[in-house]
Amino acid sequence: MTDCKFAGDAEVIDFARRHSGQFEAGATLNVEEIGDGNINFVFRVFEPGGASVIIKQALPYVRIIGEGWPLSQDRIRIEAEALMLEADYCPDLVPKVYHFDADRSAIVMEDIGAYENLRHALVARARLPHLADQLGRFCADTLFHTSDLYLDAHRKKEMVARFINPDLCKITEDLFFWDPYCDHERNNINPLIHSEAEALWSDEPLKLEVARLKHRFLCAAEALVHGDLHSGSVFANAEGTRVIDPEFAYFGPIGFDVGSLIGNLLLNYAGQSQLPGDDAERQAYREWLLQAVATFWNTFSGRFLGHMEAHTADPSLDLPAYREALLADLLADSLGYAGTELIRRTIGLAHVLDLEAIEDAQQRAQAETLALRLGRTLILERRAFDSIEAVLERIREWVTRNASPVTRFRCASLRSAASYVSSPAL
Amino acid sequence: MTDCKFAGDAEVIDFARRHSGQFEAGATLNVEEIGDGNINFVFRVFEPGGASVIIKQALPYVRIIGEGWPLSQDRIRIEAEALMLEADYCPDLVPKVYHFDADRSAIVMEDIGAYENLRHALVARARLPHLADQLGRFCADTLFHTSDLYLDAHRKKEMVARFINPDLCKITEDLFFWDPYCDHERNNINPLIHSEAEALWSDEPLKLEVARLKHRFLCAAEALVHGDLHSGSVFANAEGTRVIDPEFAYFGPIGFDVGSLIGNLLLNYAGQSQLPGDDAERQAYREWLLQAVATFWNTFSGRFLGHMEAHTADPSLDLPAYREALLADLLADSLGYAGTELIRRTIGLAHVLDLEAIEDAQQRAQAETLALRLGRTLILERRAFDSIEAVLERIREWVTRNASPVTRFRCASLRSAASYVSSPAL
Repeated sequence: MTDCKFAGDAEVIDFARRHSGQFEAGATLNVEEIGDGNINFVFRVFEPGGASVIIKQALPYVRIIGEGWPLSQDRIRIEAEALMLEADYCPDLVPKVYHFDADRSAIVMEDIGAYENLRHALVARARLPHLADQLGRFCADTLFHTSDLYLDAHRKKEMVARFINPDLCKITEDLFFWDPYCDHERNNINPLIHSEAEALWSDEPLKLEVARLKHRFLCAAEALVHGDLHSGSVFANAEGTRVIDPEFAYFGPIGFDVGSLIGNLLLNYAGQSQLPGDDAERQAYREWLLQAVATFWNTFSGRFLGHMEAHTADPSLDLPAYREALLADLLADSLGYAGTELIRRTIGLAHVLDLEAIEDAQQRAQAETLALRLGRTLILERRAFDSIEAVLERIREWVTRNASPVTRFRCASLRSAASYVSSPAL
Repeated sequence: MTDCKFAGDAEVIDFARRHSGQFEAGATLNVEEIGDGNINFVFRVFEPGGASVIIKQALPYVRIIGEGWPLSQDRIRIEAEALMLEADYCPDLVPKVYHFDADRSAIVMEDIGAYENLRHALVARARLPHLADQLGRFCADTLFHTSDLYLDAHRKKEMVARFINPDLCKITEDLFFWDPYCDHERNNINPLIHSEAEALWSDEPLKLEVARLKHRFLCAAEALVHGDLHSGSVFANAEGTRVIDPEFAYFGPIGFDVGSLIGNLLLNYAGQSQLPGDDAERQAYREWLLQAVATFWNTFSGRFLGHMEAHTADPSLDLPAYREALLADLLADSLGYAGTELIRRTIGLAHVLDLEAIEDAQQRAQAETLALRLGRTLILERRAFDSIEAVLERIREWVTRNASPVTRFRCASLRSAASYVSSPAL
């Protein structure tokens, strides 16, 4: 079913004109292909100086590979339905869907060109005053309202079936939970940290905890998670935030979304240790990032608690002690998934600008080593923290105490994997 | 869609003749309705002195209530598909399906009349030499092969969708995890243990743990569980075992099936403290029951471990430490669900012969109190045991040390609920 592909610009423009409701009849429209992701086609259709819309189209294969890597087009239905569900609870935080066309495997949606890709903004050390709060609200409101705490028993199960998403889940299952923990050909490893990577491959305590996190990713149908909530799926500016691209959405562990965002803020924290620029500015920004993690978690957990207190539908789950226990479990889970994001973005297939923008390979190795070790600590110690502040204190304390361990590590990067395995988590 | 109902005996016989392949052409066939459950119709079609088959039919409502309690007929498709899947791994432990007819909402299957209902056998103190071992094998083989440990990622998710079973799950969600922990009108409580029941309703630590177990029942899609694996779903004799009625099947926590069976053996253990008969014989049978629990768990866990070692398909889950951790989690989970079965069968809607066969209300109250307290202990202490032997030792030790606490309790049954809440778990 590849014949849904637009034959040319005229077809794209005609499609936008008919399905968006955003253009005057007879308006002159232009189109540009703006997709910077790997999987889909993204077009911007606009009237010069006037309205604009985005058309996202999913073909039955991965865009940058071609027909050699087939991928279910059901992903675009899932994305459209997830966007519309998210809009039920956070209409100001997702692009508006004007139309979903199953035959074309295409969504016509709001153009969010006024917002910047969050990854680029973080690399540029932008301070976005509402970001952490708005992302906390996004997670609390979308995840609570698609969980058993809120949904009717029948509706929940019907939604689980609608959001079965095997092709996209398999990508995460492999890239997050398998590749980085073995010598996989898909991995992409800075040669200067190869011994760090090797150490992970024989780190049995870590692999055990990653297996547990993977098992939960596979089985724990807690809520409709976005499933790909990294900085590249967030657009933001000084006023607002838009979360896009929920094509990986499925019913999974709540902590996966929350942890992905924490992991991405911490990837930038690791990167800012070596990115170019003034030392004091970089250090101040790193502290801003940690504060953003705290604000994000505290907003998420505070709102989630409020929703549980006010709107838990199932009386057997409506207990103060259960609310407390669930939030403690969610913090541990989130830290664990944050750790897997830190590790897979450092030595796995898909790297991030937060680290890649460090041009010098030696300096990049230092930031990468910090990311790996931070990830390992979060995974192994995730159940030891009773608040996000305690987590951040642990990070600050470790970074201060080991101001130069990374430098030391560079000198010792040829140590055997075995000697590293026996060292403490961070 | 009630027109699938058989119009009379002739239609049932004709259906059996056409769809079972078990009868000679021209054979004289008789039919009897033998259903002793509450929900479906069950017919036995037989040639006097010759072959016989069972026809199970699901109408779109609960049989004993009528159209006032509608129930999805999809349950009979789920039962047929679950029976056939179970037969892939344990063909000797389930009735053979000759035919499933979606239009009639009916299954034609093997007659297991040579086997006795396990609940009746246990009440009669039958010693079934292969029972525990065969049930352990049933659980290990069906649950392992429908889990992420064995299944391909796509196949698992496709099966999760096929076995979404909201109507039947909702019954369990309410009867196991809600009714017994509040003053629900569906409950059926011996007035002599009313204060014991009241104590549960204000037992916050217990309600917290039951909420956690419910959350896992709702979310943990670990394997295709039978979902209703009590003694009444098992038929057995000295040689063999047949597990029937998987209409509650869905992807849920492995420990739910394992725990249901443990709970049912322990319900009989509680009942045998007061059932009529010779003291020494009853005590010896109770020890046989505990041994059966041990054999069941050890067979299950030993085979499950063997399958993990030999057939885990996902390399990231194929770790010795993960196997050990998973089995420890499964033991805790199973004990928790065993506890919920003990409690809900004692004060909830659906009672069991193991306790109901005790005619004297005072004596029944003693056995019921034991069942409740044992259930509470298993739920609260489920994570404290490192082997099934340790669990059984805990039970024996408690029963010996408190040889008369139940008698004492009878005298004190008017104590306030509050004073009981503060007493230790057993």
